[in-house]
Amino acid sequence: MNKEMILEKQQQAAKILQEKNIDMWITFVRETGNMKDPMLDMIVGTGATWQSAFIITKNGDTNAVIGSLEAANMNMVGTFKHIHSYLKSITEKLQEVIGKYRPNKIAINFSRNSTLADGLTYGLYQELLEHLKGTGYEKRLVSSEDIVAALRGRKSKTEIGLMKEAIKETLKIFNEVTGFIQPGKSEKEIGDFVKGVVKEKGFELAWDEEHCPAVFSGPGTAGAHAGPTDRKVEPGHVINMDFGIKYEGYCSDLQRTWYVLKEGEDKAPAEVQKGFDIIKESITMAANELKPGKQGCEIDDIARNHIVKNGYAEYPHGLGHQLGRVAHDGGALLAPRWERYGNLPFLPIEENQVFTIEPRLTIEGYGIATIEEEVVVTKDGCEFISDRQEEIILIK
Amino acid sequence: MNKEMILEKQQQAAKILQEKNIDMWITFVRETGNMKDPMLDMIVGTGATWQSAFIITKNGDTNAVIGSLEAANMNMVGTFKHIHSYLKSITEKLQEVIGKYRPNKIAINFSRNSTLADGLTYGLYQELLEHLKGTGYEKRLVSSEDIVAALRGRKSKTEIGLMKEAIKETLKIFNEVTGFIQPGKSEKEIGDFVKGVVKEKGFELAWDEEHCPAVFSGPGTAGAHAGPTDRKVEPGHVINMDFGIKYEGYCSDLQRTWYVLKEGEDKAPAEVQKGFDIIKESITMAANELKPGKQGCEIDDIARNHIVKNGYAEYPHGLGHQLGRVAHDGGALLAPRWERYGNLPFLPIEENQVFTIEPRLTIEGYGIATIEEEVVVTKDGCEFISDRQEEIILIK
Repeated sequence: MNKEMILEKQQQAAKILQEKNIDMWITFVRETGNMKDPMLDMIVGTGATWQSAFIITKNGDTNAVIGSLEAANMNMVGTFKHIHSYLKSITEKLQEVIGKYRPNKIAINFSRNSTLADGLTYGLYQELLEHLKGTGYEKRLVSSEDIVAALRGRKSKTEIGLMKEAIKETLKIFNEVTGFIQPGKSEKEIGDFVKGVVKEKGFELAWDEEHCPAVFSGPGTAGAHAGPTDRKVEPGHVINMDFGIKYEGYCSDLQRTWYVLKEGEDKAPAEVQKGFDIIKESITMAANELKPGKQGCEIDDIARNHIVKNGYAEYPHGLGHQLGRVAHDGGALLAPRWERYGNLPFLPIEENQVFTIEPRLTIEGYGIATIEEEVVVTKDGCEFISDRQEEIILIK
Repeated sequence: MNKEMILEKQQQAAKILQEKNIDMWITFVRETGNMKDPMLDMIVGTGATWQSAFIITKNGDTNAVIGSLEAANMNMVGTFKHIHSYLKSITEKLQEVIGKYRPNKIAINFSRNSTLADGLTYGLYQELLEHLKGTGYEKRLVSSEDIVAALRGRKSKTEIGLMKEAIKETLKIFNEVTGFIQPGKSEKEIGDFVKGVVKEKGFELAWDEEHCPAVFSGPGTAGAHAGPTDRKVEPGHVINMDFGIKYEGYCSDLQRTWYVLKEGEDKAPAEVQKGFDIIKESITMAANELKPGKQGCEIDDIARNHIVKNGYAEYPHGLGHQLGRVAHDGGALLAPRWERYGNLPFLPIEENQVFTIEPRLTIEGYGIATIEEEVVVTKDGCEFISDRQEEIILIK
């Protein structure tokens, strides 16, 4: 993210702090070369080796408390107004900077619900408590999850524009790989073809290259969250692919479904067509109800119920997630009320959030049908920002 | 890391558990696409989206408790013997697997001192406590830092062999860039040249590309932990570069110093030569005392005192760190007794650890002299695994 975008996000953060009535937000990190807080890219623009505190206040002030060896770099990066450096221990400077603002409520980078707001490791949290011991501030710490959810969720026009570009380029690559898929090609070969095109065009993959793209051909595959195998495409296979790119730092995340015609067929068998249609309908029905103020679990219900009502097993995951600079972005999820999702299915949906909608079902004996589209939440509904898959793609 | 190496490391971990009298080691993670525990690459070999526990016991058993959508992938990766998958909540399966072993002492992935053992975020730690609530196991949790320090620190012959290769290739690149450095070239141009060579040869950089290589030309630069600037090389500059590559996953990390001759000079001025010599001597003196059982702070003292005794300011960092699959690896550090280093300067040095030795000093009016070499700790001393820089490199 460039400096101007970071400064914009810091100002947006200050407004969110006012709205949430939080005085100060501290992102506390160390050795980001080994593990990097997911917010650093958006609000700092560089990493840190020594224990470092990146502090944004509700009046828009920004303070970085960092190791002396990194002060020159931080100055060069230029995203923080006030830079305070220490040599042997961060304690004194950190207390001094916090004390200047006398904050009543201090958000720090931990959350049970949201991984994007949970960059503070437990050992480092104990260090932070020790630094603040006796100041009283150690008792005013709250989770940054509301700030992070709002800051990452509410996309600017520029951000939505970049995500539309990412989608456009991704759909072009889906078209190219359609010409490559043939009986006898392996999932790995198909995956490698896609990676080759991505590289040639100078894009990055939206998530780790082991599963991007994920390609599943025929019945009995892993179906999701696994890499392509040596399994070969055969006539009668339903194939699905999950794939996205980063375009100037912004992710796409889409899925498409193909059917490989058997000899003598000129269209998919009725049961394949039915599975595809149910997926498509469930996306339409969910999108029709997606709007600000709704909870994600209500939207998940709609697609899930439609699939189950038609005789299929329910999908073993949420209906959709937000995306942005990472493939799983923001707070609110379109997901069922399962413990593993914490409070995320219950957060109210907001304008300018970008969601995937990605139900799935198994067509016995053929494979797995999935479609994943992307929508942006508008003032009173949502709009598709991906050209929808209307028909199952046939491979001859 | 390939499957065989991971299985080897798991067996090494089981032995370390026995040695440290710890019954079970749990690495608890989620959404590793956003932030990845630094140990996953070494003991698991894949990531996880849902809350997942990777469990190694002192008898060498391995259990993965993971989300159902990721079970097929985990099977394919093949690094864990027993795979337990859940749909809605991890609590029950996790309790069941832990309960089977009745552990008295359970190491989990947090540490105040070591970032490599501190992959568990604070929000996720709270989740873990909730999962274990009422079982009694939540009171038997200890830090995994001793395990991680031993497992990452004690390098196998294969690992040391790969690191020697990484060093050899890095020194070749230092030679190539020596032919490129000229008055009028900017730090950025020099950095880009190095990156170009790395790319052409198909290597990866050892740390993030913003500062790899780091190039500093002349007086008044940042000196460390910053990216190359538009500052141009001039006659009379001392130049230093900090640079490393990954060779089959293993890092090198070296620094070299150049002097740019002024018109009429055929060697470096006496004060430049003196600065270079003091650095070189301090490395020799430190290495002479480096051996198993010593504390890193004792070794740091030796180099630091030599530099200060000769009239230079002490360097604002530690003398050296371990390296391996990451540039800052293992536990024990060659570092002063500063709060920011926690207990790492006090840990006893062990055989087969690989350390950098990298003192620095400022030569007023010329720039910063640094040399960084690498050594492996032997039974009763240490051996240089980098060909040492014996002379300051002259640029005409």
